[in-house]
Amino acid sequence: MTAHAHHEGRKHGMRPFKTLISLDEALTMAVDLVRPVDRTETVPLLDALRRVIAEDVTASIDVPLADRAAMDGYAVLAKATFPAGKFKPAPLRLLETLYADSVPTKRVTKGRCSEVATGSTLPKGADAVVMVEDTEREGDLVKVYRPVHPGEHVSRRGEDIREGSVVVRAGEWLTPAKVGALAAIGRDRVKVFAKPRVAVLTTGDEVVPPGKPIRPGQVYDINSNTMASVVRENGAEPLLLGRVADRMESLRGAVRKAVAADLVLFSGGSSVGEKDMIIDVLRSMGDLLFHGIAVKPGKPTVLGRVGGKAVLGMPGYPTSCLSNCYMLLVPLLRKMARLPPVLERVVEAPMAKRLVSVIGRVEFHTVRLEGGLAVPAYKESSAITSMAHADGYIEIPANVDLVEKGEVVRVVLF
Amino acid sequence: MTAHAHHEGRKHGMRPFKTLISLDEALTMAVDLVRPVDRTETVPLLDALRRVIAEDVTASIDVPLADRAAMDGYAVLAKATFPAGKFKPAPLRLLETLYADSVPTKRVTKGRCSEVATGSTLPKGADAVVMVEDTEREGDLVKVYRPVHPGEHVSRRGEDIREGSVVVRAGEWLTPAKVGALAAIGRDRVKVFAKPRVAVLTTGDEVVPPGKPIRPGQVYDINSNTMASVVRENGAEPLLLGRVADRMESLRGAVRKAVAADLVLFSGGSSVGEKDMIIDVLRSMGDLLFHGIAVKPGKPTVLGRVGGKAVLGMPGYPTSCLSNCYMLLVPLLRKMARLPPVLERVVEAPMAKRLVSVIGRVEFHTVRLEGGLAVPAYKESSAITSMAHADGYIEIPANVDLVEKGEVVRVVLF
Repeated sequence: MTAHAHHEGRKHGMRPFKTLISLDEALTMAVDLVRPVDRTETVPLLDALRRVIAEDVTASIDVPLADRAAMDGYAVLAKATFPAGKFKPAPLRLLETLYADSVPTKRVTKGRCSEVATGSTLPKGADAVVMVEDTEREGDLVKVYRPVHPGEHVSRRGEDIREGSVVVRAGEWLTPAKVGALAAIGRDRVKVFAKPRVAVLTTGDEVVPPGKPIRPGQVYDINSNTMASVVRENGAEPLLLGRVADRMESLRGAVRKAVAADLVLFSGGSSVGEKDMIIDVLRSMGDLLFHGIAVKPGKPTVLGRVGGKAVLGMPGYPTSCLSNCYMLLVPLLRKMARLPPVLERVVEAPMAKRLVSVIGRVEFHTVRLEGGLAVPAYKESSAITSMAHADGYIEIPANVDLVEKGEVVRVVLF
Repeated sequence: MTAHAHHEGRKHGMRPFKTLISLDEALTMAVDLVRPVDRTETVPLLDALRRVIAEDVTASIDVPLADRAAMDGYAVLAKATFPAGKFKPAPLRLLETLYADSVPTKRVTKGRCSEVATGSTLPKGADAVVMVEDTEREGDLVKVYRPVHPGEHVSRRGEDIREGSVVVRAGEWLTPAKVGALAAIGRDRVKVFAKPRVAVLTTGDEVVPPGKPIRPGQVYDINSNTMASVVRENGAEPLLLGRVADRMESLRGAVRKAVAADLVLFSGGSSVGEKDMIIDVLRSMGDLLFHGIAVKPGKPTVLGRVGGKAVLGMPGYPTSCLSNCYMLLVPLLRKMARLPPVLERVVEAPMAKRLVSVIGRVEFHTVRLEGGLAVPAYKESSAITSMAHADGYIEIPANVDLVEKGEVVRVVLF
């Protein structure tokens, strides 16, 4: 850093990185700055899948709603079967036949039974079900060849879910099974936390949205698309606010508008002048929390607070921007969206070749998986193909300067 | 099975499971029966995230579009800086100042330079960039204190992506980085494979959709919701066709309509009669491939083919149905949707208590994670809370009959 420091302020009013903070510090500061979203919305049950529920849901019914048969067979009074044996059937008279949705009309007594299907409401008087396999039928005479105990092959009312019990608690993340539990008690709509809204901007007069013509000196807007992608896959909603011109007043105006969202995300133009402008805007409109992280790529990253909202300025280089999204933005988004920490999809593989790293900062290296090996895929931070043509990345801690060929590394897949 | 077999045909025309096939066989048969979807659709770039691209995308431009500065500084002819040193600056005259989006107008010669920002198009004549930190400026005189080699701090035209090269290949799964690469070459729309359409039905006169009133003998439709959830999170689109009455003609009509989709999924009523009806319908309308899998829960599962489409009949019990979704349906869906195999989110934990299993079939046990231990959460297959109140599941192979307390198990999270 001293190489930079002694040039401080030499040109353009450039303010280089005086002190880089560690990735861990940056992460802590950023995560501390945001709050879980409090807004809620009510959505159809199926749309609540993988959302975070915003209410304790209490069962208004028992599940099952009544005692019911757990097998196809005959509803009986258990003690009527006690004398039964393989060669000495207990004879019972059939009262009625019940399907799963039938309402029983007759009371089962000691010498009687009712035919039931799995799911049938257990008729009054009955306390057990004899499996059809253990019976023989002759007209309305049912011979039972095996005794059952009270409660055998019966699902008790409320056995799965008891009326008044909490089925899903506010803050839980709705898996398919929890969606199922909500269906079980008859819920077809559910209150979930709203998705945090994230304003996504790009600075730089040279940036052109994809789909438009381009000329030398211009570049397509990669970062809005990669940042919005990461926002989307982490439970938040990107608001694409487009490009901001490289002028102080444009940037101020854009930030003023953007802080209506829950988080402001922009990718800085990569030039020194633009970076300064962002710092000035943050200082004049709110606070600048840090500027520069000891991570490679991804150093020129800015965190500020304007109007109580976090403003995260990502590097302009696409790979730096996207790698910072994975390292810094994802935990931030998931806290805001109240999602559990991301469980990375990881594979372990030996390095195909030696990789040299710099002591003092975390390095993020993209790799391809080829023939079971992790092959470095990183070209440079300005190249989106450093990531697009990679399968995942490895993280080299700040205190490690070398990964040997053959050393097994932990590849986090994209 | 013999306990069942000698009762064959005794009642209702019941046909019990004669031969259970293994889970592996069932999986192979089911996966072999479906084909990856061929339909495509064109969507806005950002909506292509995590979709499977259906075209080879060739770059119609170089990225960068022209040689450009990789640093803020001065564009020079490298050899003009060769004599420069820490105490012996090479003096150059400033021609013009270029911003990132400027079009250079002047040719750089040996005694001249142009000021550039990161991203500026390199002016004609220049072949390197001197970092601003290695210079001193006095009016239009620029003193260079460090030599650069040709190409230093220059991003070459096409260095990231070369015009005519394939950026993303048909069949690739679009990660944020690949979305970024498509943006880099200016694509704002992209052709992706359509989501497979999956017809979701429930049989059973007792089944009521959530949101409606219910009476004893009825149950809410859990399985349509859990099946549709699993369909959605595995790249396919559920078509909720609702309940089918327990009558042969209703079921035939429903299957006839449902096979317009790419896959038909239904959860059988759990009664013997209903199961028979499904088997008869599949046999009369197409083929029955298997009926009964050696897995617990999940045995009463049916696979058939009607009109060339796979028809998968799941058990009626909610936990059996959902566990089969994870084991059988997910690989099927992902093949159809052309998605990579699911990378499960797994944690390892010691069992909180001993678990007994039955030799001869795979067992699927739900567990909660409590204090670092895997605590069995399974109640019974009819209880959706067996899964909704669990964090994940463990799979006990068919040849294992016991998991000891303290044994470390692999918990697949929901």
